[in-house]
Amino acid sequence: MNKYYDRYINYKTQIDERLFNFIEEEHPKSLYEPLKYILSGGGKRIRPMILIFCCEAIGGTIEDSIDAAVAIEILHNFTLVHDDIMDNADTRRGRATIHNKWDLNIAILAGDELIGLAYKSLLMTNSPNIGEIARVFTNGIIEVCEGQSYDKEFESRESVSVSEYLMMIRKKTSKLLETCAAVGAYIGNGSPEQVENLMNYAKNLGLAFQIQDDLLDITADENAFGKKIGGDIVEGKKTYLLLKANEVVTGESEKKLISEIIENTRDRDISAQAIQKIKEIYSDYNVIDSAANEVKNYTLKADSYLDELDNSDAKEMLKWFSKMLLSRNF
Amino acid sequence: MNKYYDRYINYKTQIDERLFNFIEEEHPKSLYEPLKYILSGGGKRIRPMILIFCCEAIGGTIEDSIDAAVAIEILHNFTLVHDDIMDNADTRRGRATIHNKWDLNIAILAGDELIGLAYKSLLMTNSPNIGEIARVFTNGIIEVCEGQSYDKEFESRESVSVSEYLMMIRKKTSKLLETCAAVGAYIGNGSPEQVENLMNYAKNLGLAFQIQDDLLDITADENAFGKKIGGDIVEGKKTYLLLKANEVVTGESEKKLISEIIENTRDRDISAQAIQKIKEIYSDYNVIDSAANEVKNYTLKADSYLDELDNSDAKEMLKWFSKMLLSRNF
Repeated sequence: MNKYYDRYINYKTQIDERLFNFIEEEHPKSLYEPLKYILSGGGKRIRPMILIFCCEAIGGTIEDSIDAAVAIEILHNFTLVHDDIMDNADTRRGRATIHNKWDLNIAILAGDELIGLAYKSLLMTNSPNIGEIARVFTNGIIEVCEGQSYDKEFESRESVSVSEYLMMIRKKTSKLLETCAAVGAYIGNGSPEQVENLMNYAKNLGLAFQIQDDLLDITADENAFGKKIGGDIVEGKKTYLLLKANEVVTGESEKKLISEIIENTRDRDISAQAIQKIKEIYSDYNVIDSAANEVKNYTLKADSYLDELDNSDAKEMLKWFSKMLLSRNF
Repeated sequence: MNKYYDRYINYKTQIDERLFNFIEEEHPKSLYEPLKYILSGGGKRIRPMILIFCCEAIGGTIEDSIDAAVAIEILHNFTLVHDDIMDNADTRRGRATIHNKWDLNIAILAGDELIGLAYKSLLMTNSPNIGEIARVFTNGIIEVCEGQSYDKEFESRESVSVSEYLMMIRKKTSKLLETCAAVGAYIGNGSPEQVENLMNYAKNLGLAFQIQDDLLDITADENAFGKKIGGDIVEGKKTYLLLKANEVVTGESEKKLISEIIENTRDRDISAQAIQKIKEIYSDYNVIDSAANEVKNYTLKADSYLDELDNSDAKEMLKWFSKMLLSRNF
């Protein structure tokens, strides 16, 4: 495809290999079978990739950072296993979730163990900054738990403001990307300014990514996106679009429809007509434009932090990777 | 009472104060309310005490080790919150468990966050060995999860050998004490021999403690023990006593009774008569003596590792503390 893509695939292969071979234990089977299952489940390896490129962008190498990169992917998998329990999700990436394939207790324990395994891989990193690296990693875990708690709280709350929503996704989605950048930067012995710039880059990329995910629920091509269009509306998910609409809509019938979705008081069988009506509201009240603008602004902001760094192949990689990510091109 | 007890109370006060004030955050309430609730729940602080005394026994101080001591208590609380979910326990230390007082999702998240908070406190430790300290702490988490998985596996298995049981409690109960000793020893800049001796001390103490817990279910004074005598039998818990009896009993009716308890095929309303009969079997087949012997041997072994260390006040503290612990005197 191109030299960027080739490098991505090369790194992905290395990450996957480490990940698949990370667990050598066999017993207890009730713990290690589900762990092997989840770690072999595939994925784009977005987070480890950002960690490695951030490390490289300031002079480090993939060899220095791959243990930490594997650690962050294991940590990400912990969040998936426990979130799937909380969301009653039966499948993930087309495969049965752990609590569905095994049971609740096994899924709780597998998630717990993944945190331990994540630290195990992280602490294999050979760096004089290991204390600081472990500290930013730990802050990541703490804030991701806070983000997930807010998300669950918001589900049962009647009203959530757009700014509360942004605070929540900053913790739930962006924080882990920010952690990748910080860990990569510390491994690369970055200066305080470099660490700061890379963290800000990742934070803004995360916000752009999440809001775009909300947007794609309405605007995407169903086949390319791989999810059902309007699925968030059917689920009553409090997305950027829905919360923004709730703040700006003025018409009586439109206000009523939006709050019914937010308060989950409608029948779960939301008609295609109602979804169409909501799409029109989003369009009429410039909610879609507003979301698209947010994505654009966060993306520009992310790029501007990268521009502060000296030029390098890895910096170009980060730019290419952000673009691929936001265009959902792989 | 005596100078040992005074010192214990002095240290306990310091640990409790740190623990109660550890969480400064208020929001999200759905996360921090249950966390404050669990961390203010009291307890003997056995694990932080062992960590600090081990550090002191080789020349370190409580100031050096108190952040790590608080970390290990937070980690212990994580195991309680998630284990209580898996055991369907409604109460703990006379108070409602988190999943009972709040709900399952909140209990899962609170437990996850406790792991993060434990590392946060651990990583406040100022030591050149911080990488090694974090590594032994992480190994502790991994093995404790393995131990809990074995415990759950054994619950539904028909036969478990005494040696499998010992392997399980070594992971589930002893490993955290061993971790306390290792962390304390590394903070105190212990030599490899000192680290090894302290870890072996704690491991054997843990085994003695757990088998004695099993023993007390049958031999204790109900008022002093604070639990119902024979409770393990009623629950069909695979204790040292039950598994040992299963290996040595020869009489037909006795074999049948023991395997009914193990296989959980009996009615849950086990009569006082049946409990009495099992107590007699334990006595007739020297199962009680065998358990008491194991406790004695592990205790002697624990002490012998302490004897390898130079004399110090802290070493005397450890000896006193082990004795108090095993006599359930506080």
